[in-house]
Formats: sequence, C-alpha cells, structure tokens
Amino acid sequence: MRAPNHSTYELHYWPTIQGRGEYVRLALEYAGIDYIDVARLPEDDGGGEAALGEFLDENEHFPHFAPPVLKTVDMAIAQTANILLFLGSRHALAPADHAGWIWTHQLQLTIMDFVVEIHDTHHPVGVMLYYEDQRAEAIRRSVEFAKSRAPKFLDYFERVLKGNPAGNTHLVGKSITYADLSLFQIVAGLRYAFPKLMRRLAPKYPLLHALHDRVAAQTKISHYLASKRRIPFNEEGIFRHYPELDP
Amino acid sequence: MRAPNHSTYELHYWPTIQGRGEYVRLALEYAGIDYIDVARLPEDDGGGEAALGEFLDENEHFPHFAPPVLKTVDMAIAQTANILLFLGSRHALAPADHAGWIWTHQLQLTIMDFVVEIHDTHHPVGVMLYYEDQRAEAIRRSVEFAKSRAPKFLDYFERVLKGNPAGNTHLVGKSITYADLSLFQIVAGLRYAFPKLMRRLAPKYPLLHALHDRVAAQTKISHYLASKRRIPFNEEGIFRHYPELDP
Repeated sequence: MRAPNHSTYELHYWPTIQGRGEYVRLALEYAGIDYIDVARLPEDDGGGEAALGEFLDENEHFPHFAPPVLKTVDMAIAQTANILLFLGSRHALAPADHAGWIWTHQLQLTIMDFVVEIHDTHHPVGVMLYYEDQRAEAIRRSVEFAKSRAPKFLDYFERVLKGNPAGNTHLVGKSITYADLSLFQIVAGLRYAFPKLMRRLAPKYPLLHALHDRVAAQTKISHYLASKRRIPFNEEGIFRHYPELDP
Repeated sequence: MRAPNHSTYELHYWPTIQGRGEYVRLALEYAGIDYIDVARLPEDDGGGEAALGEFLDENEHFPHFAPPVLKTVDMAIAQTANILLFLGSRHALAPADHAGWIWTHQLQLTIMDFVVEIHDTHHPVGVMLYYEDQRAEAIRRSVEFAKSRAPKFLDYFERVLKGNPAGNTHLVGKSITYADLSLFQIVAGLRYAFPKLMRRLAPKYPLLHALHDRVAAQTKISHYLASKRRIPFNEEGIFRHYPELDP
C-alpha cells in the first residue's frame, strides 16, 4: 500500500481535553508528522464540538463509536490503540518485525486498560453522571485503585522495562515506540491526578520515572509540551485532580 | 513468516469461567484449529489455576499482565483483541486487505470496551472486592448501564450491521469474522445476565439477534456449545445473573 500524503492527516477529537486523543497527538508530534487537530480549529474553519459530532455521525457504512478518529487520504481509523498500530507501522514508531510489532501492541492495549481504570476512579457509576453525583463511590473506588490497581499496573510496566533484553530504558527494543510515549502520558497524568500517591510509590518505580523524564526531554516532545498545542490537564479529562481521591 | 504447526497452540486461561478467554475459544473452535486449553487439564498434566499462575510469572523478558495468553511455536501473545488480530490473519477470520483488517480490529476493540463496562456492572468499586461488598454501587451502576451504556453499544453494533455495504448479516464483508463470533458472545452473555433488559430491548436490535442465531447455528459452533469444552455461564465470570441488577 502506498503511503498517503502525511500532510493530509486529520485528528478528530474533543478540543478541550487531552483524553485518549493525547496518545495519538504524542505519536504524531514525536514522529514529526503534519496533522490538523480539526476540532481545535475555529468554528468557521470546521472546528468545535458540534462539527466533531457531525463528523462522527456522517459515516453510514463504517461508523465510529467514539473519537479519537485519524483520517488519512484513504481511511478513517478509530480506537486509540488501533490508530497507534497504524502509525507505528507507517512511521517507524514500533518494531517492523512481527513479534516486536505484536508485543508493542499488547503493551499498548494494557496501557489502554489502565486508562479505563484511571478514568473510572472519578466515574465509577456512569459517564453520563456528574462527578459530584458519584463522589462517595469515587472515593471508595480510589481507595482500591491506590491500594491494588495502580500498583499492579505500575509494577507490571516497571517489570517490562527491567526485563527488556535490549536495556531498561525503553519498553521495547532500543528506541522509543508509541508505547513509551503513552506510558510517559500515564506517568505525567498520574502525577497530576494523584500527586500524593505517586510520591509515596515513586521509590518503587525508578525506571518508569526515568522513562517519563527521557520522553519529556526529546526535542520534539519538549517543544510540543511547551506549546499551545498541548492542552493542560484539567478536570474534564481522564486524569483529574480531586484532592479527596488522593488523601 | 511460515505458519506454525497449529496443533501446538496452547490457550492459557482461567479454567472455570468463559471470561475473556471465550472470545479466543470461539475463534479457535470456529476455525477448526487444534488447541489445548491448558489450565483445564488435570493438575498432573499441567492444568489448574496454580500452574496458570506459574506460567504467567515465569516470563522474565516479555511478561503478560493477565490471561488469556495464546502460545504458538514461536510466540506467546496476550490481550484478547491482540490474539484475535493474530488469529484473524493466520486463519482467515478477518479480511486480508489492510482497510478491512484494521476495521475488524476497531470493532473488536469496541467490543472489548463493552466487555469492561458489562463486567463493571457487578464490580464498580474494585475487582479485589466481593460482589456482596459493592452491591449498592453495582445496583446504581446497572441502572446507568440499562439506561444509557448498553443501548449505546447495542445501537452502535446494530448500526454497523445495517451499514455493512456487503449486507446486514455480518459486521464485516460477507463472511464470519472473529468480531462476529465475539458479538455472538456479547448477545449470549447479556441474555444470560440481563434477561429482562434484553427482552425489553430486543425489538430494537433485530440484526444483532439474527447474527447471534446465525453464529450459534454454524456447525462447528453448535458442536462446541453443546460440548463440555463450553463452560456454562456462572457467577464467577464477566456475565453474571444477579436479579437485583436486572429489575
């Protein structure tokens, strides 16, 4: 298959949060791929949430359940890990060999499972309800998260880094893959949402924090993080700082 | 890459539940692939939960977060959707063209998101706690599930069936893919766990129920479902029938 004209990539995602779109943004930014973050354009240029809703509804034959959607010249792809699988192959953000390619995707799918559990700390009852209407349940779920789920996932990724035969500085092989970029986002987000928990746990996860810092120091990533393209963490996204959930 | 000797496939998954392993079992059964459901063997032959735990712990370099794991001659793959991606390519359970292959995976990832939400109806606070210790939260979450989340996912898959340019009898193209097999399992599981809800909603989803029945009638699947290899639904798995969650 011929590579598309990269300048035509369109990212369709909520314009005011990092959310799941951020894993795609980080991959596009790190690989230096031109893209348009469509919903962040002015409304007159096709941006805004209403236009995003219309974009999602317009596809009769191959509808998407939810954003992010990456649109190329000839395809529209949804599901974060699926988009990264595509970008990984097209833009050398994952190993080219079959075993390495599938292992990287396995790690990404586990990262996405972690994202759901992080999100549900503040929305354990339902995404259609306000946080304030499920705070009691959120507090209870966050206790479990801090006690067992967060350590289980963090232990796992620390173990993957430690076990990497090519060295403990990356999840896969010797160079940055989309999974490293996503794990950076996990660590950054958890530091924002659960600062006390992450400080208490930090001594157990030296490799994870080193990976975070290494990714943040990449030229293209550091420029991105300092730019207006990086939406700040906020209490509309996946990583929310509610002090009562991080006592 | 040369196809492995199929008879060497090993499925490693909890021996007493359908769980996420069932999506893999259905694909293996439908494709007529020989496999060993390792943890269901007698303990003397390497079966049992303790042996499964050891299997998961033994991998220093490429550890798995959780089962199911599919072991081939030269690989061990975890994450349900990742295993199906592999089986889909190797055993013609998905389109061979890139766009069809990635679309099928996108649908599967959305099915897996639905699985998490179904599971969390009975475990909204934490997987490490008993259901009985989170029943109040489960009742609240199940109200939201019945009112908004289940219809949202079911609407979506009905829409995908209706929109399939090749006909409304399959999710993708004109033949059964692993995503159809997984959607069969979703419908079967929801009928078990939420019989009242599913009866109320049934008139809205004729294509979904027709797909369920069509998959169940496939010779290899009907033989599997009638065999001892099919573990019955029970209250240890993902789809649990608690009457108070389906009022």
